[in-house]
Amino acid sequence: MSSSNKSILVFQSDFGLVDGAVSAMEGVALSVDDALKIHHLTHDITPYNIFEGSYRLFQTVSYWPKGTVFVSVVDPGVGTKRKSVVALTNDGQYIVTPDNGTLTHLANSIGFSAIREIEESVNRRKNTEHSYTFHGRDVYAYTGARLAAGVISFEEVGNELSVERIVKLPLVETHFNKNTHSVQGVVDILDVRFGSLWTSITRDEFNMLKPSFGQKYEVTISNDSTMVYQNQITYGHSFAEVAIGSPIIYINSVDRVGIAINQGSFSRAYNIGVGSNWKVAIRKVD
Amino acid sequence: MSSSNKSILVFQSDFGLVDGAVSAMEGVALSVDDALKIHHLTHDITPYNIFEGSYRLFQTVSYWPKGTVFVSVVDPGVGTKRKSVVALTNDGQYIVTPDNGTLTHLANSIGFSAIREIEESVNRRKNTEHSYTFHGRDVYAYTGARLAAGVISFEEVGNELSVERIVKLPLVETHFNKNTHSVQGVVDILDVRFGSLWTSITRDEFNMLKPSFGQKYEVTISNDSTMVYQNQITYGHSFAEVAIGSPIIYINSVDRVGIAINQGSFSRAYNIGVGSNWKVAIRKVD
Amino acid sequence: MSSSNKSILVFQSDFGLVDGAVSAMEGVALSVDDALKIHHLTHDITPYNIFEGSYRLFQTVSYWPKGTVFVSVVDPGVGTKRKSVVALTNDGQYIVTPDNGTLTHLANSIGFSAIREIEESVNRRKNTEHSYTFHGRDVYAYTGARLAAGVISFEEVGNELSVERIVKLPLVETHFNKNTHSVQGVVDILDVRFGSLWTSITRDEFNMLKPSFGQKYEVTISNDSTMVYQNQITYGHSFAEVAIGSPIIYINSVDRVGIAINQGSFSRAYNIGVGSNWKVAIRKVD
Repeated sequence: MSSSNKSILVFQSDFGLVDGAVSAMEGVALSVDDALKIHHLTHDITPYNIFEGSYRLFQTVSYWPKGTVFVSVVDPGVGTKRKSVVALTNDGQYIVTPDNGTLTHLANSIGFSAIREIEESVNRRKNTEHSYTFHGRDVYAYTGARLAAGVISFEEVGNELSVERIVKLPLVETHFNKNTHSVQGVVDILDVRFGSLWTSITRDEFNMLKPSFGQKYEVTISNDSTMVYQNQITYGHSFAEVAIGSPIIYINSVDRVGIAINQGSFSRAYNIGVGSNWKVAIRKVD
Repeated sequence: MSSSNKSILVFQSDFGLVDGAVSAMEGVALSVDDALKIHHLTHDITPYNIFEGSYRLFQTVSYWPKGTVFVSVVDPGVGTKRKSVVALTNDGQYIVTPDNGTLTHLANSIGFSAIREIEESVNRRKNTEHSYTFHGRDVYAYTGARLAAGVISFEEVGNELSVERIVKLPLVETHFNKNTHSVQGVVDILDVRFGSLWTSITRDEFNMLKPSFGQKYEVTISNDSTMVYQNQITYGHSFAEVAIGSPIIYINSVDRVGIAINQGSFSRAYNIGVGSNWKVAIRKVD
Repeated sequence: MSSSNKSILVFQSDFGLVDGAVSAMEGVALSVDDALKIHHLTHDITPYNIFEGSYRLFQTVSYWPKGTVFVSVVDPGVGTKRKSVVALTNDGQYIVTPDNGTLTHLANSIGFSAIREIEESVNRRKNTEHSYTFHGRDVYAYTGARLAAGVISFEEVGNELSVERIVKLPLVETHFNKNTHSVQGVVDILDVRFGSLWTSITRDEFNMLKPSFGQKYEVTISNDSTMVYQNQITYGHSFAEVAIGSPIIYINSVDRVGIAINQGSFSRAYNIGVGSNWKVAIRKVD
């Protein structure tokens, strides 16, 4: 029923879709092989935000077929000595990216079985040696397309590197406090359109509180040491279990604790941001 | 010349394209069959706005080939008892959606020949029974892909329901007044980018005024009982028939009366919104 | 390895992706031949901005395979006597567009070998003669799809026109001043997401100053006769060669002089706009 899934190419970047950058990358890929099937994760990564790029890969890669080639270009260090790599996940997908932290969340979840440095003397569009600012087009899209199309093998990408030495952003670990019956993590990212907080606390970590649906838990959110929010919130399966306008604790679609307002925006309601200084503690109420 | 059009899948949602939600849905669909051809209607439906989702389907479905499968996820009731369905239009296209009003405009235009409830014990991704917030990925994209790929038939979606009992939003009917030679409807939606008003008044209803191109008509726009705009506007074929900056009445691309400013924004110029409380009356000038 | 590249269709417009306009165009194209491969350049051209539409084509067309059909609809004159055309570039790509200046930058770069006027009595969707506002759907997408699918040949588009008579927007030429060792051009457009200025000064023109990487040049930016910015800026290969927050002169991905702030926005920092009244002079410092 299906054609080879080796030919799926998925692009991600912080370029936006307002100008021609992404289209130039697509054209380069289709010039390698016009039978490639090109899809887009998102091009609305906040400019230079490597954490977001890493997170969005984590959020989606596992849903794609084995053999899919992802090209992710969030590259504030373009033109520096940062390495250009292709990493192979333990599930058999490829990630073409600068090695600048973009692989962090996948390294900590699916994991990588191998990684190779792109040898630019071979894997770069011809006659682009005077182009210094658009590796997304000249190196990453080109290499991703050649890999997806089978023009080069993974081995032909370049020399193997050590998976252990992949550049990783520091991630915050969840802290469990037995005495207070609480778990503490951070706000990793927003479900942007709906304003829900997606925390770093996993379903398993939250389950250490032995939570029950319908019960209330005390949620405390701090920006560094300043408390920004503290209230009791119901734990539910899904938004519609609380009244419109009411807050809810739930397990989100990537198996982490989310905090939302049914049909409202939690992040806007309380001016809550993202990052390791935005701490979230959830405590069992006695 | 063509491959089977059974394999076209079109996604619509209020998820936006900033995060990974839509990409996860695409990956799920291509994991069902990587030969599927995936397109997007829009993912910028205003969050939770079922009317908009319904309207955008009406605006586009009829231009797509028979057999196209649309997956529309505007789902404020995710996790409630609202039904998940697949509806078959009289032209042979499928709409996979929560039955929450999203089918309203199509029911009133093309119409449906059959509708089936998605039987989730079969038509849901394996091992997602603890995921309660992303039916778009786990149920709708999965079922749409299996239907488009021919893995399941329409009958295998689940039990048949009555087409008469599809959930419909209340729509405003056009009122024709013989004495004042006027028609009255509402502002259904905006041609967002250009700020034109798209009214609920059809070409046929407007034609009851026996209008002539080049003539002026009195347009009155009210927000509930407060008049917001009243002036005479020329009826033309197309924007360029009036001076830049001048208003025009025209028949839009979905055969309804539009009101615009040539190269300007009518909605911004007069702060006009959309919905059944935004009334538009057009009167023949003596 | 590849299928015929005659079947690639690329859409551009100022319609945005918020409503159903682009999806209707896609549906029309796939109804012509559902094997067509549809891609998108951008739909976020500023409404009515023909210059931007022309520039984005210039920025991307050369990266796409020979035979690719571009459909570009920035059409403030829809409904007027402006011609609808298909132009064939010297590299063998087709551009379907109103002849309103959209072909300017390609005419001055790749160049065109032939141009034909779309004969609407043949090349228009049936039963759309009462639709006056959406030629993008009824004429351009339809004709582009039929050409890409091989349903019509280039000759069957309609009568040949003179390539010399293509409508062109006035472009500003770069001025080189021997006495002051300076080049002067204008800000053509922004690298929107990152706020970098993309000037009209080409790499070759800038090279008349015999520049060296790492040296500083005096940059003066004026809005008509009012000076808005004057300072010395380092010429580098790429952003990361200067400190974060520092300005840089560089050659951008379309071989023209760019002016940026590393990880900042030059255009927002100094309130700089685009167009022929935004003049940029770069002078060799003694």
